[in-house]
Amino acid sequence: MAVATTLTFADRLAAEVQRKQSQIVVGLDPNPDLMPVELRGDIARFCCGIVDAVAPHAVAVKPQLAFFEALGSAGIAAFEQVCSYARRAGLLVIADGKRGDIGSTARAYAQALSGSTDTPAGPVAGLGADAFTANPLLGRDSLEPLIASGSGVFVLVRTSNPGAADVQDLELASGEALWERLARLVDELGGAGAGLADVGAVLGATRPEHLERARELMPRAVFLLPGVGAQGGRVEDLAPAFAPGRAAALVTASRAIVGAHREGGGDPAAAALAAAERLREAAWSLAS
Amino acid sequence: MAVATTLTFADRLAAEVQRKQSQIVVGLDPNPDLMPVELRGDIARFCCGIVDAVAPHAVAVKPQLAFFEALGSAGIAAFEQVCSYARRAGLLVIADGKRGDIGSTARAYAQALSGSTDTPAGPVAGLGADAFTANPLLGRDSLEPLIASGSGVFVLVRTSNPGAADVQDLELASGEALWERLARLVDELGGAGAGLADVGAVLGATRPEHLERARELMPRAVFLLPGVGAQGGRVEDLAPAFAPGRAAALVTASRAIVGAHREGGGDPAAAALAAAERLREAAWSLAS
Repeated sequence: MAVATTLTFADRLAAEVQRKQSQIVVGLDPNPDLMPVELRGDIARFCCGIVDAVAPHAVAVKPQLAFFEALGSAGIAAFEQVCSYARRAGLLVIADGKRGDIGSTARAYAQALSGSTDTPAGPVAGLGADAFTANPLLGRDSLEPLIASGSGVFVLVRTSNPGAADVQDLELASGEALWERLARLVDELGGAGAGLADVGAVLGATRPEHLERARELMPRAVFLLPGVGAQGGRVEDLAPAFAPGRAAALVTASRAIVGAHREGGGDPAAAALAAAERLREAAWSLAS
Repeated sequence: MAVATTLTFADRLAAEVQRKQSQIVVGLDPNPDLMPVELRGDIARFCCGIVDAVAPHAVAVKPQLAFFEALGSAGIAAFEQVCSYARRAGLLVIADGKRGDIGSTARAYAQALSGSTDTPAGPVAGLGADAFTANPLLGRDSLEPLIASGSGVFVLVRTSNPGAADVQDLELASGEALWERLARLVDELGGAGAGLADVGAVLGATRPEHLERARELMPRAVFLLPGVGAQGGRVEDLAPAFAPGRAAALVTASRAIVGAHREGGGDPAAAALAAAERLREAAWSLAS
């Protein structure tokens, strides 16, 4: 349940980044194939354990909806539980569902993720996220209802996977890449004004050479940067993302934190805490 | 639960189109704002009522996930119920969620929609869909795990909304539009061979001038054509989509059928039945 507030998502994020001195977002990807055997039946417990471990050093968690949805209605109940637990632990929640649809359907997604839906029996609360990821392929009228919901929206601009090159890197007749056009759309939707916009951008940390250009095109957008660690991105390459200030980018890591004990050994929670703290320090030192 | 079968989705679809003599897909969009007041609290009952009304004249239903998700875990349970009801009524189910993500996340979406997920307590069945819609912005490696699941996959190529022009119609340096490049990707992913491919394409019926070109680029893909009726598409303009045969395209309508009583008056179920029958005849007469 969203706490009533007059602050925008970007304002809340900036305040939390300052309070936590952290720009780290920990991915919650309860993939049964990567979970400890004893927790495979209980993704809520697995995720809440990660929340406990990383809460001091992270500013947000990013649960991946697909792994919850794969468990049906019980998975959705687990998502609600994890979301509420993370918020009580002082973390923002960015629901990673990469939704994209039009008109009333887009509004229903926003209600499902972070709002509520009116029914004759009273309002049904959504999942309780503070922000979510969105896919811009359907254009402006698919993003506007998400933005109008008042939640933070992170629009896919240039993702971290190899296949991103198949579509997002296509060269347009104008000479720019498709992802640069998507970046312009994000900037337009974020509106004019000072400070950070509520419309952010997902940019893979695996291609840091794009970050300077992305920052030129989207001076006010918060960048969500997945791909550090397991996917090969290095935090020290991300400085251009932080040019407008410390809350202007969020560094996302999943396996690098949750699976830290596999490399260094020891207790998983202690290893995750140490990995989150190292990443927090590395990112914090990039901007002032 | 998917019935075990060695037939591909395209084979099953072709057989059902022949048996039903129908290429009509009825959208199940339980948008509270458009539902009769007395059913607003019970989307499963609303959707099952539509299934009853249209089953004789439709080959499939296309439930829109967002409206179910907006009701939380109860909405997901309702989705499962509607899916199972529609299949017992002899209809295929195309889950409209427009998912798009990578690797293990894409696999989890396929499990959630039409497969099952292993847990220590046994496999958890997915929603039970026969096919689903997918968003190709993340490229080939986001679509391959969906296709590998064995379900039918309808990839967004050129959607029916005005905002589609913002991104899908962008001209590439090669001279073609982005949607034409997406069409080539769909054709490649469908593989070589005779007959219809399991990888289909979503193409808005609102822009019939694209259908001939789309058919050239995707000779084996089943086209899913939304936008007839309320969005302005006319069934008589869709003939090029059916060039390879009667099962090569599916005409989707939602409000034109479910809300038929608003225009012509009378009992909603009888009006929906009559509207579905008219649409079925109009589409069937387009190809031989």
